[in-house]
Amino acid sequence: MDREIVNNIKSLGIDMIDKAGSGHPGIVLGAASIIYTLYAKHMNVNIDDPLWENRDRFVLSAGHGSALLYATLYMAGFNLTIDDLKQFRHINSKTPGHPEFGVTEGVDMSTGPLGQGIASAVGMALASKILNKKYEIPKKSKLGKEQSLFDYNVYVLCGDGDLMEGISYEATSLAGSLKLNNLIVLYDSNNISLDGKTTGVFDDNIIERFKALNWDTIQVKDGTIISSIDKAIEEAKKNAKPTLIEIKTIIGEGSINENTNLVHGTPLDKDDITKLKLKLQIEPEEFYVNKEARENFINQIKERSLKKYDIYNKQVEDFHYKKEEIRIDLGNLSFDYNLKESLRVSNGKIMQEIEKKIPNFIGGSADLGSSTKAVLHDTLNNFIGNNINFGVREHAMGAILNGLALNNFYAFGSTFLAFSDYLKPAIRMSALMNLPVTYIFTHDSINIGQDGPTHQPIEQLASLRSIPNLSVFRPADAKEITGCWEYIINNKKPSCLILSRNEVNLLDKTDRINVNYGGYIVRKENNLYAIIISSGSEVELSIKIANDLYEMYKIDVRVVSMPNRELFLRQSKEYQEEIIPKGYRVIVIEPGSKQGWEGFVYSDKYLITLNNFGYSGTKDEVFDKMDFSYNKILKKVIKLLK
Amino acid sequence: MDREIVNNIKSLGIDMIDKAGSGHPGIVLGAASIIYTLYAKHMNVNIDDPLWENRDRFVLSAGHGSALLYATLYMAGFNLTIDDLKQFRHINSKTPGHPEFGVTEGVDMSTGPLGQGIASAVGMALASKILNKKYEIPKKSKLGKEQSLFDYNVYVLCGDGDLMEGISYEATSLAGSLKLNNLIVLYDSNNISLDGKTTGVFDDNIIERFKALNWDTIQVKDGTIISSIDKAIEEAKKNAKPTLIEIKTIIGEGSINENTNLVHGTPLDKDDITKLKLKLQIEPEEFYVNKEARENFINQIKERSLKKYDIYNKQVEDFHYKKEEIRIDLGNLSFDYNLKESLRVSNGKIMQEIEKKIPNFIGGSADLGSSTKAVLHDTLNNFIGNNINFGVREHAMGAILNGLALNNFYAFGSTFLAFSDYLKPAIRMSALMNLPVTYIFTHDSINIGQDGPTHQPIEQLASLRSIPNLSVFRPADAKEITGCWEYIINNKKPSCLILSRNEVNLLDKTDRINVNYGGYIVRKENNLYAIIISSGSEVELSIKIANDLYEMYKIDVRVVSMPNRELFLRQSKEYQEEIIPKGYRVIVIEPGSKQGWEGFVYSDKYLITLNNFGYSGTKDEVFDKMDFSYNKILKKVIKLLK
Repeated sequence: MDREIVNNIKSLGIDMIDKAGSGHPGIVLGAASIIYTLYAKHMNVNIDDPLWENRDRFVLSAGHGSALLYATLYMAGFNLTIDDLKQFRHINSKTPGHPEFGVTEGVDMSTGPLGQGIASAVGMALASKILNKKYEIPKKSKLGKEQSLFDYNVYVLCGDGDLMEGISYEATSLAGSLKLNNLIVLYDSNNISLDGKTTGVFDDNIIERFKALNWDTIQVKDGTIISSIDKAIEEAKKNAKPTLIEIKTIIGEGSINENTNLVHGTPLDKDDITKLKLKLQIEPEEFYVNKEARENFINQIKERSLKKYDIYNKQVEDFHYKKEEIRIDLGNLSFDYNLKESLRVSNGKIMQEIEKKIPNFIGGSADLGSSTKAVLHDTLNNFIGNNINFGVREHAMGAILNGLALNNFYAFGSTFLAFSDYLKPAIRMSALMNLPVTYIFTHDSINIGQDGPTHQPIEQLASLRSIPNLSVFRPADAKEITGCWEYIINNKKPSCLILSRNEVNLLDKTDRINVNYGGYIVRKENNLYAIIISSGSEVELSIKIANDLYEMYKIDVRVVSMPNRELFLRQSKEYQEEIIPKGYRVIVIEPGSKQGWEGFVYSDKYLITLNNFGYSGTKDEVFDKMDFSYNKILKKVIKLLK
Repeated sequence: MDREIVNNIKSLGIDMIDKAGSGHPGIVLGAASIIYTLYAKHMNVNIDDPLWENRDRFVLSAGHGSALLYATLYMAGFNLTIDDLKQFRHINSKTPGHPEFGVTEGVDMSTGPLGQGIASAVGMALASKILNKKYEIPKKSKLGKEQSLFDYNVYVLCGDGDLMEGISYEATSLAGSLKLNNLIVLYDSNNISLDGKTTGVFDDNIIERFKALNWDTIQVKDGTIISSIDKAIEEAKKNAKPTLIEIKTIIGEGSINENTNLVHGTPLDKDDITKLKLKLQIEPEEFYVNKEARENFINQIKERSLKKYDIYNKQVEDFHYKKEEIRIDLGNLSFDYNLKESLRVSNGKIMQEIEKKIPNFIGGSADLGSSTKAVLHDTLNNFIGNNINFGVREHAMGAILNGLALNNFYAFGSTFLAFSDYLKPAIRMSALMNLPVTYIFTHDSINIGQDGPTHQPIEQLASLRSIPNLSVFRPADAKEITGCWEYIINNKKPSCLILSRNEVNLLDKTDRINVNYGGYIVRKENNLYAIIISSGSEVELSIKIANDLYEMYKIDVRVVSMPNRELFLRQSKEYQEEIIPKGYRVIVIEPGSKQGWEGFVYSDKYLITLNNFGYSGTKDEVFDKMDFSYNKILKKVIKLLK
């Protein structure tokens, strides 16, 4: 019966692509046996409780194979209908062009950009291991079989493209160091990518490469033999290291264009489909379903998984386990922050408070924890602890945070703001999946000085602010930092916290609650003459400028702290105009790209920002060179307000 | 004498860091023997002609080791003085915090962000190989020794951090496939990174990893033994594959903090320095120079290199070789572009014309050439040809393009706009070094439809526009594309060409020359009522809307095509106001983030842009869902102009 099910998965996938007029038949025909074997013989899932927390996870890293995944999920009994399959790649369907988390039951993460899936799977596998340790069954437990409430495996199906991406190297290297033996990667190895054969372009000896990264490896020479795939997965589950199973397949197997790049991303023509179905011994009708085959597939999964599901549920009762709440109040901190301090240092202290309040708060740094200070107390060791050393792997860090957040953790990661570029694609995935991940980017301006332009962010703040559904905060002092964290965590938002390395004083009028409005007044005037908007460490500078202006000229300037511009722009028109009344000159002071501030001012000359690369020099030298010293800004403001 | 020179390099480096009050002593003390051996025994360079085209290249991928590099260059006789060394990490000096191309003679590229150096070195090595084939010495040449005018080697010094970065994996994997045996990587292997020991974080078996990537490998067990390093490099030069030499070193060797992360990035204290100099048998005075040692070092380099330099110069005469000019005129194309066509297709044709005019035009795609159509005729094979298959390695592609551009090529690379995020750090390096690299990003909006939000760019255009010194063009039709290329190439600008997959008609009023102004009028009115600004495939749509408005309401709307917003904003105020006169309502239509357009309009409601992620569906379904269909835009414009 295995063969009938596999062939039916293939024919459904091909029909979906044919009906949609676009899609990727190559992987449907090449890898159907792999995904079928995985679901039929190994995946512990419950189609009636698709978000069961101890389910095995499956990540289709080769996200273009969505038709294969949906056809499999349908045949496996998940909540999809033939009509859903017919709506493949159409708007508002359960079957979008690439798998989307939250749209389709049974899809454990959104994939599409190559490498993201396999890297986030490392985060999921790590989550499983940490939960495993955290919820070990006490000896008195009535049930003895399982050692912990959590012991799920994470399976990945990936292709050559995924393994060419640097992010997959980074993540699998860390997975090797972490000995994530619950991670099993099924590598659909067919030597063809979109532009042609991989020979001469991608000649890695993958088995040797993964061995060098401390993985176990298995080769399956014929990817059509289900028993071989089954045996390999069985063996992999027993390994002490993560396992890569290289499965040799033929892309588009059975099509007239099999084994060429022509079959990668173009629908088969009608004649090809007819002949293919004949070979597969599938009825010629479109979207034909062998009901007996489907039932068989469903039963295979149920027979295995439901036992495990029942045990889990009984243990949950035993354990009084409840999904952890993510909610904080930072109104009363156990330390006094009434001092002059670098914001990265203040933030580090505040994070220790959050750690006490949220048990599943976890994260780390891409080898810059000593500098970002975003470090928790317990360094991960044997899967106990909540501070992870990611190594110099910014991109994998982002994707792993996504995996952790998909698996019940509140995740954070830190590096310098200039290097946020390295993980942009992963940040975008956080935003797209709406995950509770916070990126902490310190060294947020040219004041870092001597390291020079490669380390001085200019455009990064603008770039991050342009990402949809990402909350970007640049707080002015420790009070604002607490407000940012409360907003971020209590709204479970994908977010960035942009922090200065500069020391700043705790300001009089900053306010934790006001951060929720995105922008608010921190220097009130008696007689409004003009308004300065600023953020981060430049709020203190702006207040000083306003005070000096009053001293010198009795000009009364309002200062608005705007830790989150987009949040401010989402407030009511009334609120916005109360804070920034129309008819007054507005000046913006921020050491980064002007982009996005243009709407606040009459003309660009009121934007005291930075639009060129920086220089290597002391902080003061660089500020002076770039016309951003206190005196030069003051002079500029005076000229603008004349 | 070798030891004296090495020790003097160390003491100078340490003094520089001490005087600057910041820097990275760990690598100075750990890797001085490596860099000295390389320069003294192998590098073919001419200190009097530092840009000699056939010189060997050296890339300090671990850019934080700049003090080591400057001290070495000084001791090797390059154009640096002790005063320059004393100005380390100060503004306007020749010795910035990380090496900067164009600032210091002898620095072959800017480095700092880890992984960029080693990846760009792959591009340089490829450049050398291609030049080698291109300028083979004809048999009649009077000199027989060299087989080609170009045969330079590329050497890299990298550390653990570089090898953890995904980009270094990507680039070295391709280097293995390309068999770049002129690339020699010296791996400063000390098992320490910024946050501590690499054990448990980075446990790759590097030798096995590089073997799996088709490299030759050599191990040097003691990185203080110059003869061992020398022998290893000698052997590497004879290999048929690229070579990784793993050299075991002790970070901060000789400091009291040696072999710990404490010595990575913090200056040594005075006492430590005193004791260190005693151990090194270096006079205690600051910036002490052993003149004899320096002379010896200089002579070693001269004796070897000048012979080669002389041969090169004689061959240059023989060969009538001149550095290739980069300048084009696309006024007369050999094909007629008067038709309705997808812009990616038009661009592909135009690039064939450029290929005929510029012999050193070279590039390729990250496995999406079939889709981006930015493909030249001759696929690189045995280093002949100008079209490179980079594989699914966007980030390495960017860095390799930088390497090619640093070595006399005009380089381009293509992928989808949504994936531009993957190579952002490399694009930033192009802009920072002001290199003639063009990034071609197609599939530039939600009209790609069915692949869904992971493949639909929203914020990418804004993000690219925010990068300093990067020219971002989004042309409206084939005529504008030719104008973009002329500007880009003749100004040798780092640039992006953003192209629609949509078919558009060749427009009446678009103009190749006007592209130079960034924005200009493509629909002139008789009686100005309002202005629509647009770019790319939406210019045609905007003209149609303006025409329909005139038809329906006799409202006469000007349409401005703005292929390059920043270029427009750099024009004179007079020109800008001629095109967009004050006092009229302005509407912007562009299928991407509003960021940066705010300054053109009275309020955000006049920005018909996209600020949320897209959806999977047909083009029409997605346009409708996101209120970007023709009818919905028309309705919105009518409402705005009421």
